[in-house]
Amino acid sequence: MRAEIITIGDELLIGQVVDTNSAWMAEQLNEIGIELYQITSVHDQREHIVAALDEAFSRADIVLTTGGLGPTNDDITKHVLCEYFDTHLIEDQRVRAHIMDLYRERPDVLNKLTATQWLVPESAEILENRVGSAPLMVFHHGPQILASMPGVPYEMKIAMTEQILPYLSRQLSAVSHHILHRTLQVTGIPESSLAILLEEYEASMPSGLHLAYLPKDGIIRLRLSSYGDLTEEEMALWFEKLQSQVRDYMIADTDDPLEVILGNLLKAKGQTIATAESCTGGKLASLLNKHAGSSAFYWGSIISYDNSVKEHLLGVPAELINTHGVVSEEVVRVMAESVRKQLNTDYSIATSGIAGPSGGTVNKPVGTVWIAWATPHGTTAECFHLGKLREQITDRACVKALVGMIQKLKVERMKVES
Amino acid sequence: MRAEIITIGDELLIGQVVDTNSAWMAEQLNEIGIELYQITSVHDQREHIVAALDEAFSRADIVLTTGGLGPTNDDITKHVLCEYFDTHLIEDQRVRAHIMDLYRERPDVLNKLTATQWLVPESAEILENRVGSAPLMVFHHGPQILASMPGVPYEMKIAMTEQILPYLSRQLSAVSHHILHRTLQVTGIPESSLAILLEEYEASMPSGLHLAYLPKDGIIRLRLSSYGDLTEEEMALWFEKLQSQVRDYMIADTDDPLEVILGNLLKAKGQTIATAESCTGGKLASLLNKHAGSSAFYWGSIISYDNSVKEHLLGVPAELINTHGVVSEEVVRVMAESVRKQLNTDYSIATSGIAGPSGGTVNKPVGTVWIAWATPHGTTAECFHLGKLREQITDRACVKALVGMIQKLKVERMKVES
Repeated sequence: MRAEIITIGDELLIGQVVDTNSAWMAEQLNEIGIELYQITSVHDQREHIVAALDEAFSRADIVLTTGGLGPTNDDITKHVLCEYFDTHLIEDQRVRAHIMDLYRERPDVLNKLTATQWLVPESAEILENRVGSAPLMVFHHGPQILASMPGVPYEMKIAMTEQILPYLSRQLSAVSHHILHRTLQVTGIPESSLAILLEEYEASMPSGLHLAYLPKDGIIRLRLSSYGDLTEEEMALWFEKLQSQVRDYMIADTDDPLEVILGNLLKAKGQTIATAESCTGGKLASLLNKHAGSSAFYWGSIISYDNSVKEHLLGVPAELINTHGVVSEEVVRVMAESVRKQLNTDYSIATSGIAGPSGGTVNKPVGTVWIAWATPHGTTAECFHLGKLREQITDRACVKALVGMIQKLKVERMKVES
Repeated sequence: MRAEIITIGDELLIGQVVDTNSAWMAEQLNEIGIELYQITSVHDQREHIVAALDEAFSRADIVLTTGGLGPTNDDITKHVLCEYFDTHLIEDQRVRAHIMDLYRERPDVLNKLTATQWLVPESAEILENRVGSAPLMVFHHGPQILASMPGVPYEMKIAMTEQILPYLSRQLSAVSHHILHRTLQVTGIPESSLAILLEEYEASMPSGLHLAYLPKDGIIRLRLSSYGDLTEEEMALWFEKLQSQVRDYMIADTDDPLEVILGNLLKAKGQTIATAESCTGGKLASLLNKHAGSSAFYWGSIISYDNSVKEHLLGVPAELINTHGVVSEEVVRVMAESVRKQLNTDYSIATSGIAGPSGGTVNKPVGTVWIAWATPHGTTAECFHLGKLREQITDRACVKALVGMIQKLKVERMKVES
């Protein structure tokens, strides 16, 4: 079973909006055994949408479209689909009742444009959009299926989870093949050296197995994929073999984000963490509490962007800053120890660096970042040079901070176990 | 001049990576007068890449590809392009010297796989990739152009900024038409009501002018676009007219992110801000210091995820939490005032809410968020209900927090002026 996604909206093509939907949809489709073949982003233009539909139907069993379902004039997807599937709009009383109910407490929204939302294509199956006014539409095109849903990410996610994916699963009465992905993460080795290390392994792989290298911010994700050729047991064996090859560099045997890996390590022992951030300015904190359940291990942070905050809230002596500079081992150590003590956590991480574009010097150029990790067994610190672009520097600093903490926790636990 | 982007990589189609490149590239292309017609994401597969190239060349003058240029076996773009343009690989001494220089201090990277990076297609023009080993390649296809660059975002951005965009600008000796976009942002009105308010305006627009509605997190961006039909002066008049129609709801007359608008307001008066965050957990802080120059107005934050931090660092009395609950007007006011005082800033924002999925009650369901704004003229607070999904709730809370602060600053300044 092969699917394609068509995302509809000028905003995607002038760069006003980043398409975060497709990646999420791809993951969900893979999980129920549907391979995503292509993603195509097109304008809110009749001819463009029609051409994309023709092309997608020439290749795929399932076509998913997002966007263009709002009540305003620039949204034309529903009308184009009506034309494409040679049908017309009729009033749907169930959709009408749902919209009435949705805006019960906001009568100002129940205007004539909102009323166009309960006009639906006669030949389409209409699924419930629990959280919005745009109807979810499913069209049949011979044996092929098209499902149309809103482009607003949270509406799309609820539509997919509650309606479209269960609908597609029901259609896939006998899944023809099994898509398998297994990913691990390594650090501390260049991509090309890793590939040389894995030369023999790659040469020995069966033809239905694929290995991909995904480097980002100092981490390389290694992904094994099979599209129907391997059993789960065979996949598990090849994955185990891969792990034994890269064990010295492996930071995780899953594709979980680093903050989830760290959170799981902490939760397993009922331990807690805090951060004191200067150059990363809250990015590390917001990663640590991004996921549900983070209040179990994440206590909080002191974001000391200005030096006065480092002095007053973190107790970094002004003298230390004057002598060593604010981006220094001395300062970052005090920051880490102070936040660990004040917030009364088991661990803490502190960052101080020059994210640029200004502020660099010959000895401490833009991209210089000091990170300290405070633990019940002492504090360590390390200096990194993380590139030249502000966003890249702060992203990479978060990766280094998390990797460092994960490694320290793993070493500690190994010591305890042995 | 019309361009298309082809992003190459299995990781995009299994949902392992979000394509953030295309939106950025689209914006840059628009700025030099090139319209982006379509974005297509394809697998690292020969036939798939070839089919996408054929389709793109049937529609566009310029084709930009990203990805598939790494030294490992899964990256095949260079080989497919060689085949497509009927050429072969040769050693490029300039690229070789550049790579040698790039890895001067990391001899472990100079292995046999890295050496394949200085093999380039004979018929391609090679542009310098200052920060990476993959050569930037430009192919001519009759009057059409293909430029191939790496998919790693920061490498792509430097390649585009320093090489590809100047190259394309030189080709566009006489830009055939002028792409114009003007965007403003409104809040406090439903999308459909806004469209009814603008009915007459839309009916009066000339045929070459387009109006789009982009709702997200409680803000609606209204974008006027013209693809060559209007002069800049005509566009300015229509934009002015649009502003006068929506003045009561307008929060900004640009597409700038809210944190930039707030930062500019603060910088203009040499004023400063701090945050105290519970449910937003650092997201607001990292927005405020995301952009260069933020140290001029952003002092820092206290992220009090755990209640003990609210008590010890923000001085919220335990009694207040016990009486009113941690998500309450009383607590969020103390948080805002305390951080403003401790960090010695002019303004502050505090958030406390239930981001879920657990923690909701009948009276305070998931999505309830209290926000307080402390100013030199007093503190105000407001309660919001921001949906059901964790990410949506915290994103929207940041929007509400920033909008509230912007509005307060604007009112203050109007009072001073009048």
